Amino acid sequence: MSVTAPAGFAAAGVTAGLKKSGGLDLAIVANLGPLANAATVFTSNRCKANPILWSQQVMSDGRVSAIVLNSGGANCYTGSIGFQTTHATAEAVAEQLQVSSGDVLVCSTGLIGEQLDLGKLTAGVVDAGVALKDTAASSAAAGLTAAQAIMTTDTRPKQATQVSPAGWTIGGMAKGAGMLAPGLATMLVVITTDAVLSSAQLDAALREATRVTFDRLDSDGCMSTNDTVSLLASGASGVDADPAEFTTALTKLCRDLTLQLQGDAEGASHDVAISVRNAASETEAVTVARAVSRSNLFKAAIYGNDPNWGRVLAAVGTIPEADAAFDPYGIDVAINGIQVCTAGEPDQPRELVDLTPRAVSVVIDLHAGTAGATIWTNDLTHDYVEENSAYSS
Amino acid sequence: MSVTAPAGFAAAGVTAGLKKSGGLDLAIVANLGPLANAATVFTSNRCKANPILWSQQVMSDGRVSAIVLNSGGANCYTGSIGFQTTHATAEAVAEQLQVSSGDVLVCSTGLIGEQLDLGKLTAGVVDAGVALKDTAASSAAAGLTAAQAIMTTDTRPKQATQVSPAGWTIGGMAKGAGMLAPGLATMLVVITTDAVLSSAQLDAALREATRVTFDRLDSDGCMSTNDTVSLLASGASGVDADPAEFTTALTKLCRDLTLQLQGDAEGASHDVAISVRNAASETEAVTVARAVSRSNLFKAAIYGNDPNWGRVLAAVGTIPEADAAFDPYGIDVAINGIQVCTAGEPDQPRELVDLTPRAVSVVIDLHAGTAGATIWTNDLTHDYVEENSAYSS
Repeated sequence: MSVTAPAGFAAAGVTAGLKKSGGLDLAIVANLGPLANAATVFTSNRCKANPILWSQQVMSDGRVSAIVLNSGGANCYTGSIGFQTTHATAEAVAEQLQVSSGDVLVCSTGLIGEQLDLGKLTAGVVDAGVALKDTAASSAAAGLTAAQAIMTTDTRPKQATQVSPAGWTIGGMAKGAGMLAPGLATMLVVITTDAVLSSAQLDAALREATRVTFDRLDSDGCMSTNDTVSLLASGASGVDADPAEFTTALTKLCRDLTLQLQGDAEGASHDVAISVRNAASETEAVTVARAVSRSNLFKAAIYGNDPNWGRVLAAVGTIPEADAAFDPYGIDVAINGIQVCTAGEPDQPRELVDLTPRAVSVVIDLHAGTAGATIWTNDLTHDYVEENSAYSS
Repeated sequence: MSVTAPAGFAAAGVTAGLKKSGGLDLAIVANLGPLANAATVFTSNRCKANPILWSQQVMSDGRVSAIVLNSGGANCYTGSIGFQTTHATAEAVAEQLQVSSGDVLVCSTGLIGEQLDLGKLTAGVVDAGVALKDTAASSAAAGLTAAQAIMTTDTRPKQATQVSPAGWTIGGMAKGAGMLAPGLATMLVVITTDAVLSSAQLDAALREATRVTFDRLDSDGCMSTNDTVSLLASGASGVDADPAEFTTALTKLCRDLTLQLQGDAEGASHDVAISVRNAASETEAVTVARAVSRSNLFKAAIYGNDPNWGRVLAAVGTIPEADAAFDPYGIDVAINGIQVCTAGEPDQPRELVDLTPRAVSVVIDLHAGTAGATIWTNDLTHDYVEENSAYSS
C-alpha cells in the first residue's frame, strides 16, 4: 500500500513519452479532501530547479490539492521558458481536477539544463486526469502505478504505510537510487495521510521526521537541485491525530523509505551505517559521521571488504576543532562489531572483521559527550562510476 | 636535478625491506651546511602520525640537519611504541651523521595502524649513512635515487629545480599519486636551497608558496595524516637571497611539483583545472572550486567525457551563502573553452565540448567580485576504485 492507503486520495501513473526508455514517467496524486492541508521540505541547494521555485510559491498558504511528478527531465537551469513549462503543467492539472493551479505542487527529475517537452507533459496530464476520475484511482494498484511512474534508475518502487489504532493512516512513496542518481535526481517523496492536522502541525512533524531520516542518507555527498518531500493531509478519517503520536509514526515511515532508498543504490555493494557515539552534541555527531560517509578512500575500502579503520580516523581528523570536539588519540572504532581501534591504537586484528555481508556497521566513539547520530551511506564501487560516467544523464 | 642541485646537500636512497615489493623504501637528505635553517608545513589533519608529532618538536628551533623518509608504513595510530620507533630512527640518523637527533626530521608513508619494523629501519639508516659519506652523495644520481626511494604508487620520480641568476639554487623532490593514495599517503615533499635565508624567511616563503600550489591540489578530497613539505637551507652559495625573488622561484618550483603529482594520479584519465573567476574574495573562489572538485558526480561525468555542467552548478549550489556570495542564476560555466552556461541558462550545445584530451579546463564565473583561484583535481575512474579497494593499503 502507498499514497492511496489513507482515505481521500487518488493516484495515477501514465506514460507521457518524456523518458527515452518509454516507461511510465508522469504521476499525479490528488487530495480529495475534505482538507487540503500540506507541508513540504525542499532541497537546501541554492541552485533550485524551476519546479521547486514554483512549489515554494504554492506552499505560501499551506494548501495543496494535488502534486504532479515527472521523470525524464529535471527542468533545472532552463530559465524563464522552463518556469513557464512548470506553470503550464500546474495549470493543466488544475483544469483536469477543477482546482486552483496555485494549489498544485510540481516535481521533476532527470537531466539538468534541458527543456521539457510541454506538449508531452500536458498530454500526459490529460491521460492521468482521466485515470483519476475512475474509482480505481484510490486503489492500492493505482498507488503502485504512481510509485512506478516516478522511478528513474530505481530497480523497484518504494512504498510504506503506517496505521494508527486511533483511526488514521499514513502512506508514502519515494523515488531515488542514492549514489546512482544520474543527473542528480536523488529523491522525490510523496506522503499522504487522512489524519486531521493543520498545515502548521504537518510542517512541524515533517521537519522533525526528515531531520533524522532523509537528511541522514548521504549516499555520495551530492545534493540534488530537485529534492522534494511533501506531506498531504485529506482529513478524510475525521480523526484529530495527536501531533506527537503522528510525528512518531511519520518518522517510522520516513525511516522505512530512507532505508529502501539506501538499499536500492544499485551501484552499491554495501549499505553502511556510520554511528557516532558520545559526541558533545547531536550536531557534532552528524558532522563526524558525515565526514566519514564522504571519504572516497573509506568507501572504496569497504567495497574491497577492507576494514581500513585508518581511513575512518583520517576522515574524522579533517574536521576543524570548532566543528567537533574530540581527542584525536582518544577515539574508538568498531567495524561490524569488532573493536579494531581503542584510544587511537590498534585493538582487535582487522582480519577478524567480516565485510562480506551487504550491511556494514561502523561505530565511532568520540568519548567527548553523550550525544549520538547515524548517517546511512553506501560504498564506492565500479558500478557507481559506470552509472555516473557511461550515460549522459 | 633534485635535492642535490643546490650546494651543501647529500642524498641517499636504500632498500630497508619495509616495502613488500622489495624496492627502495628509505631515503635520507643531509644538510652539510654551513647553515641548518629550515621550515616545514604539516598536514592540518587533527589525526597526525607519529613522525609529524616528532617533527613538530624538531621544528621548535627551526634547525634541521637531515630528514629521513620511509615508505612501507605510515606509523600513524601506532601509539607510544610507534613514537619510540620514530624517535629511534632519528637517533640512528643522528649517529650516522654526527648531528643532534633533535635536528632530524622524520617522514613515513604507507598503511595506518601498523607498527614499523625498527630493526629494518635502523639497518636501512646505516646503509644510507655509508652512502652519504661518499662524495657521489651530492650528485644528481644520488638525488634521483632518493626521489625513487620515497615513491609509493608513483609511476615516476618527481623532481624540480629553480636556478637564480643571483647565484642560488632551489631543488625539490616529491612523492604522492594524488587520488591513488593508498593508506592516505598523499604527499611528501623535500625542498633544498643553498641560498642564505633565516628560518623565519624560509617559513614565510614556504607558507606563501604552498598556499597557492600544494594546498590547491585536491585529487579526491581526502586529507593525509602524514603530509609534510619541508624546506632546508644550507647557505652554501654564500648568497643572501632577496626574500621576494626567492618566494617567486619557490612558488614556481612548488607548482611544477604539484602538476607532476596531479599528472601522475594513475587512476585518473583527466587532469582537471577548476578556475573560479570574479568571486568576492580569493577564499570564496577556492571554496567554490573545491566544492566542484569534490563532486563525485561531476568527476565521474568527466571520466565519461560528459560535459555535464548541471553537475558543476549543483555542486556550487551546495555552498552556504555565508561561505560564498553569488546569484545561483547569474553564473557562467565554460568547459574546455565552450561556454555551455550563461547566467544559469544553456548557452552553447554541450556536444561542442571535446573532453577527449587529458587536460580539462572548467571556468566558473560568479559575477560576484574580482577575485579568482584554481583548484587542480582529477576525474573519478574505475582505476581509482580499483586502486583503493582491491589492495589493503
